[in-house]
Amino acid sequence: MKGFKIPEATVTRLSVYSRCLDLFEEKGEETVSSSDIAKQLGVTPAQVRKDLAYFGEFGTRGIGYNVNGLQKQILKILGLNKEWNVAIIGAGNLGSALFFYKGFKERGFKIAGIFDNDSRKIGRKIGDKTIIDTKYFAKYVIELKINLGIVAVPAVYAQETVDMVVKAGIKGIINFAPVSINIPDDVMLRRVDLAAQLELITFNINKEEQIHQN
Amino acid sequence: MKGFKIPEATVTRLSVYSRCLDLFEEKGEETVSSSDIAKQLGVTPAQVRKDLAYFGEFGTRGIGYNVNGLQKQILKILGLNKEWNVAIIGAGNLGSALFFYKGFKERGFKIAGIFDNDSRKIGRKIGDKTIIDTKYFAKYVIELKINLGIVAVPAVYAQETVDMVVKAGIKGIINFAPVSINIPDDVMLRRVDLAAQLELITFNINKEEQIHQN
Repeated sequence: MKGFKIPEATVTRLSVYSRCLDLFEEKGEETVSSSDIAKQLGVTPAQVRKDLAYFGEFGTRGIGYNVNGLQKQILKILGLNKEWNVAIIGAGNLGSALFFYKGFKERGFKIAGIFDNDSRKIGRKIGDKTIIDTKYFAKYVIELKINLGIVAVPAVYAQETVDMVVKAGIKGIINFAPVSINIPDDVMLRRVDLAAQLELITFNINKEEQIHQN
Repeated sequence: MKGFKIPEATVTRLSVYSRCLDLFEEKGEETVSSSDIAKQLGVTPAQVRKDLAYFGEFGTRGIGYNVNGLQKQILKILGLNKEWNVAIIGAGNLGSALFFYKGFKERGFKIAGIFDNDSRKIGRKIGDKTIIDTKYFAKYVIELKINLGIVAVPAVYAQETVDMVVKAGIKGIINFAPVSINIPDDVMLRRVDLAAQLELITFNINKEEQIHQN
């Protein structure tokens, strides 16, 4: 990896390219060109080549990329050649949904445990797992080798939940609550705010309508 | 609204401020300062003031903002003073989860209908709704006054599903499939890619580990 910062958008596209390569692998394709990938994803071939060039030379001019080889390289770059065991904290409707979400499993993420502090939920079955009392979180992080956390608790509990996850030694967290969270420098946290995504859309539709009315 | 482009991050923060104001309203607060809001959200008071200043002067120097008044203004800016009826297309595990997700309802979004083309799902109950055959989508868009679409179908069907949603006259769409989608200029589409969010985290953790090993 070169010594400069990789744009976040490039990393996100690598993840998309990788899932695209899955489809090429399923179809039995051995080589693909940057155009083949680009066409599937609505980006330009130059973008694909530029994104991959951050990490080295993977293709052969005039031939393209070896599907399997490129896939392995991308998975390695994304850290997906390692084992990732995910804890979901919050077994409400969103947490339960994420538990069953196939998109994580397809990428090799293992949902190792789901936690809640509501006595009505603790001990209840969800899929093949039993909802664990959040107070035993640190213990289960060790036992289940958990190294990623998904926080799906109400906004008011988000900071204390993240604090607990960080204290248990987790370095990567997704937070679904619509609040900013303070974390130590060595922890990576991403916020996914589903309502804000919808509101970015309504903001823009509303703005367009106002322009057309004036 | 002034004539220049509002940064996307500002709009997203408006949505967060608005949910923060809900909490102040619940607590019975009548006025808040930019510091009060900032403290709740881990941003600076200057950021709050700058974000709000895009849209006019809402506060009174030395007193702050009227909670209820500011909330109404923000909701209006975000277009949330109108009725938004959402269709979910795809009643798989993710679509079903989004159907039950309280975060949308809390913001006034009404899930008006859920659609699928799988004969095993069509006609089945989900909450208070019956899963509708996707082939009747256009008809139900009119009947249920649907004006937003959430596409939660497998990646290979995402483009054709979005095409159908656009054809039915919907101007705002969230796509959960990990593919880029072509849309007309007058349609606003946002992609939410949950696996890519996790992979941004694993990418960074992996990179850190490599740096520390060298």
